[in-house]
Amino acid sequence: MSKNVVVQTDFGRSDGAVSAMYGVALSVAPSLRIFDLTHDIPQYNIWEASYRLYQTIAYWPEDTVFISVVDPGVGSDRLSIVVKTKDNKYIVTPDNGTLTHIAESVGIKAARIIDETVNRLPRSGESYTFHGRDVYAYTAARLASEIIAFEEVGTELDVKNIKALQKSNPQVKEGKIFGHIDILDIRFGNLWTNIDRTFFKQAHIEYGDLLEVTIKNNRREVYKNKMVFGRSFADSHLGEALLYVNSVDKIGVAINQGSFAEAYRISTGANWKITIQTK
Amino acid sequence: MSKNVVVQTDFGRSDGAVSAMYGVALSVAPSLRIFDLTHDIPQYNIWEASYRLYQTIAYWPEDTVFISVVDPGVGSDRLSIVVKTKDNKYIVTPDNGTLTHIAESVGIKAARIIDETVNRLPRSGESYTFHGRDVYAYTAARLASEIIAFEEVGTELDVKNIKALQKSNPQVKEGKIFGHIDILDIRFGNLWTNIDRTFFKQAHIEYGDLLEVTIKNNRREVYKNKMVFGRSFADSHLGEALLYVNSVDKIGVAINQGSFAEAYRISTGANWKITIQTK
Amino acid sequence: MSKNVVVQTDFGRSDGAVSAMYGVALSVAPSLRIFDLTHDIPQYNIWEASYRLYQTIAYWPEDTVFISVVDPGVGSDRLSIVVKTKDNKYIVTPDNGTLTHIAESVGIKAARIIDETVNRLPRSGESYTFHGRDVYAYTAARLASEIIAFEEVGTELDVKNIKALQKSNPQVKEGKIFGHIDILDIRFGNLWTNIDRTFFKQAHIEYGDLLEVTIKNNRREVYKNKMVFGRSFADSHLGEALLYVNSVDKIGVAINQGSFAEAYRISTGANWKITIQTK
Repeated sequence: MSKNVVVQTDFGRSDGAVSAMYGVALSVAPSLRIFDLTHDIPQYNIWEASYRLYQTIAYWPEDTVFISVVDPGVGSDRLSIVVKTKDNKYIVTPDNGTLTHIAESVGIKAARIIDETVNRLPRSGESYTFHGRDVYAYTAARLASEIIAFEEVGTELDVKNIKALQKSNPQVKEGKIFGHIDILDIRFGNLWTNIDRTFFKQAHIEYGDLLEVTIKNNRREVYKNKMVFGRSFADSHLGEALLYVNSVDKIGVAINQGSFAEAYRISTGANWKITIQTK
Repeated sequence: MSKNVVVQTDFGRSDGAVSAMYGVALSVAPSLRIFDLTHDIPQYNIWEASYRLYQTIAYWPEDTVFISVVDPGVGSDRLSIVVKTKDNKYIVTPDNGTLTHIAESVGIKAARIIDETVNRLPRSGESYTFHGRDVYAYTAARLASEIIAFEEVGTELDVKNIKALQKSNPQVKEGKIFGHIDILDIRFGNLWTNIDRTFFKQAHIEYGDLLEVTIKNNRREVYKNKMVFGRSFADSHLGEALLYVNSVDKIGVAINQGSFAEAYRISTGANWKITIQTK
Repeated sequence: MSKNVVVQTDFGRSDGAVSAMYGVALSVAPSLRIFDLTHDIPQYNIWEASYRLYQTIAYWPEDTVFISVVDPGVGSDRLSIVVKTKDNKYIVTPDNGTLTHIAESVGIKAARIIDETVNRLPRSGESYTFHGRDVYAYTAARLASEIIAFEEVGTELDVKNIKALQKSNPQVKEGKIFGHIDILDIRFGNLWTNIDRTFFKQAHIEYGDLLEVTIKNNRREVYKNKMVFGRSFADSHLGEALLYVNSVDKIGVAINQGSFAEAYRISTGANWKITIQTK
């Protein structure tokens, strides 16, 4: 059976771009199984593309081939690469930071630069603006269907030279955990911090503890209040804020059946700092 | 060949949650065929989840395994169950009312409580907030691929004890049919009432008849006018209101190429009452 | 192996309509492979449905069966047809102009009128408003799985009688190319004109040339400025406008990492005219 291909883009699903990618892949390998990660990455948001790979990749079988096309530099001299992760998955992507989280968490075993003289849709002509279709879908399908081996993608790239976005780690200082808001659980408006649940373990924080949480946008205080650390949303009252362990084992902040992000107009990034008292 | 799995959630498709569910299912059973019902159920809206199952389930083959995750009570003592319908489909869902319409229309033959000591993704750790991935996708994939039989889901639950939402039926009184607006045909803004087309047959209403329609939000009258009962939208002029039989054999209210719901700001629920004159 | 089915509608994916179509198709042919083109065609927008088929169909394998349901005339006397294109793909659609671009670009070899006495979901009853499910999904699945041959769809229709929307062609006059805005690259806000890149070749326009571009809504001038003709977005500065060859070999207008359409409130259609200076 053919390997799986999983596609992520910032193209949306309102026009034909994603379907053209599917068609290219299925023309290469008719029995290929293709799936969507998401196509709603905010345009050009490489950080979020990196995070969504991190959020999902562990749950897919070995040998799955991921495509990620969030590519503000299409047509520039940025490289197109395929990497093999330490848990034996492949990712086809522009080398622009999309692998930041995967490189740090799972780890990358090997990388190849796509040789477009071979790995490019024949007759894809004079369009230099749609590598998703002409290069990435084509190459991923050839790799997943074993028309080419990983080594035939192109010349090797030292994994140390793969581009990464800057990423800061949480810290414990004077009885407080300092982190930031990494990303949102979009539909529910929950904040996902970069604070691993192990920080709570080390600080002997238990379910049911009431903790002071401060959120700042740069220096401006946006939120300061106590909330419970709950095992799940059901441990707080309707409309009440709580801390919880999210589905990637980080600390999240939520309002039970409300949107914390909307309630306090909170966004994501290194400037959105969160401090959690530990005692 | 493996059975089909069809997934419905209120997660949206803008992050990695649905794709992680797919990955878990395909890790259990690589040749599984998985499809989406919708992921745009408004958050926590159990009624709409119940309705969308009702709208689609009859059109899928026997043995299809549905997953529905609209689960405001995740982490509480609400049960996770799998039911077998009288037309031999399976539904994996929290026991929170999601089966209201199916229980009444198709009927439920048997129910099992998911035993999470067996039917839970190994190493799914300390996250108590994502049963969609860790319990429901995992269990559905095992059931669809016959790794477990229905009986191995867990202990039996008496179908009489399955939770149901309150649901009122339309009535005929003094030459009028009284019902309410059950749900919207979202994209087109059509109202779908709870009035079965048999009510029109019994009242000898024919295509082409002009009928007075009144819509109230509680006691406030929102709309009162005559409209034609059309075989299809083409039986009314552009921009004209009409009554029609919708795709689930209930009476719908539409504006031909317009949005009735937006035009009169109409929403859904037991408080949105509709009265249709029968003579 | 079964042929592919690719579905396009204006139904959105927020309710059960598309999933019911999938269920019908899989009930006909369990091993069918079904994919989405898009379900976000603006309601009743036949032009856009026609364009999205044109944008994608060339990238799919021979024998793929497309379904397009943008059908403001459902229930009227408009025909339901299946056509075979000159590159051996099938399209199941109402005969309402949805084939305009395909007829002109790829060409149509043969057409058949769907005989609903045979090719209609059994027991699909008294609903005349959902041909997508009851006629199109059902017929496409039967065709793709070779339960029926193309000739068994119904009686032949002369391809000359297939409905087409009016469509004007670009012109060169007095050193200028006159065209219009055909459609948007929705997510990115780029304008896609009807001007083929061959016009630029014939005018000896080279990458790097600076050209004056004028955009008018009827007689009202909306934009007039010089912009570079770039090989890709990377050939302009961030936030700068440029001309480029898009993924269907037409001239596009973009702002590098911005939305040209939003910046100047530009929409699509024959009234949105663009003039590009050639020297």
